Amino acid sequence: MNQVLEALQWRYAVKLFDPSKSIAEEDIHTLKSSLHLSASSYGLQPWKFLFIQNKDLREKLKAKSWNQKQVSDCSHYVVFLATKTINDEYVKNYVNLMSIIRSVPIDKLSGLHKAIYNDVVTGPRSKISQEWASRQCYIALGSLLTAAAILRVDACPMEGLDPAAYDEILQLRNTNYFTVMACALGYRSESDVLATAEKVRFPIESVIEDII
Amino acid sequence: MNQVLEALQWRYAVKLFDPSKSIAEEDIHTLKSSLHLSASSYGLQPWKFLFIQNKDLREKLKAKSWNQKQVSDCSHYVVFLATKTINDEYVKNYVNLMSIIRSVPIDKLSGLHKAIYNDVVTGPRSKISQEWASRQCYIALGSLLTAAAILRVDACPMEGLDPAAYDEILQLRNTNYFTVMACALGYRSESDVLATAEKVRFPIESVIEDII
Repeated sequence: MNQVLEALQWRYAVKLFDPSKSIAEEDIHTLKSSLHLSASSYGLQPWKFLFIQNKDLREKLKAKSWNQKQVSDCSHYVVFLATKTINDEYVKNYVNLMSIIRSVPIDKLSGLHKAIYNDVVTGPRSKISQEWASRQCYIALGSLLTAAAILRVDACPMEGLDPAAYDEILQLRNTNYFTVMACALGYRSESDVLATAEKVRFPIESVIEDII
Repeated sequence: MNQVLEALQWRYAVKLFDPSKSIAEEDIHTLKSSLHLSASSYGLQPWKFLFIQNKDLREKLKAKSWNQKQVSDCSHYVVFLATKTINDEYVKNYVNLMSIIRSVPIDKLSGLHKAIYNDVVTGPRSKISQEWASRQCYIALGSLLTAAAILRVDACPMEGLDPAAYDEILQLRNTNYFTVMACALGYRSESDVLATAEKVRFPIESVIEDII
């Protein structure tokens, strides 16, 4: 079995973290990079990621997460935020950045600018802006989970939380961000019985179809 | 730089695929597994993935994807489908599977069954069922992109398509699935100028915040 498959078989949604173990800086850097470098629609990165180690803050968030122990016991608790709106300034900022990074004159990017503007700022995607941004966060989550598994860092993706309460606690009201979901990162506890439980997957033939 | 970072730096959204190159069976198996084993909410796997190699079908889909050449020129074109509804039968089927795979008596899983039912079939998530299922597909997309990068298989995630037209072409009307998005897999063409373009990312400090 190859390395990617081994990692994917090894991972599971951790129920009990070992609170005494914390992730080394080098791995945290790689995990942050897996979010920073994640793919997103048009490359717009409509997101922000909070790496929360503060214990008090985590207790508050735990109370709004069905008291799931993962929030307090993991090493790093990552909250995924999406953008509330993508306006023309946001798109300009992105296109300017592209112009600088790739040394392309800004007027050569006006077609791209217009295409993004006509979709995300005023067109079809502007009507589902927050949902569209939330979906992008899930791409980043998938990247993070896979990168973590390869590094043998454990994780638990968390949808069971109250996003509005998170927004309050994280003081997001006057920002361009709102809470989508979270992911606990750290190391499994030896007493987590789920660590050795078989994966439950529908037969591969029922979820993957070849059309040749 | 470590292996994961190298892979993530290497990947980009391919504009031009080399139509003469196809992905070896062993890698296809790993890529399929990255979808099959992907995390999902409650582990419910509300999805299906079509690996399309058929040229005629791909031409039809291309016409409903802004004629983007990735659809026809890639090695395998993967269409991500989400479930239209999760009903009690679906949940029962899942819990039964868990009972069999983990050798746990079915009555020991009644609490889990009820929790899923009260959320996904009749509760909060039932009201956003299709959106919730779509988001899960994006986790699988993130896993696929990262697994592909590590295998040095190129990819292009595709949101620029007409999902309703795809549903027609793929004859999904009388099924429990609808089209969410797609991902082209294969190998970059030597003439793809984007292959060597610098990545455009906002400064890491502006998208990742440590709260210590």
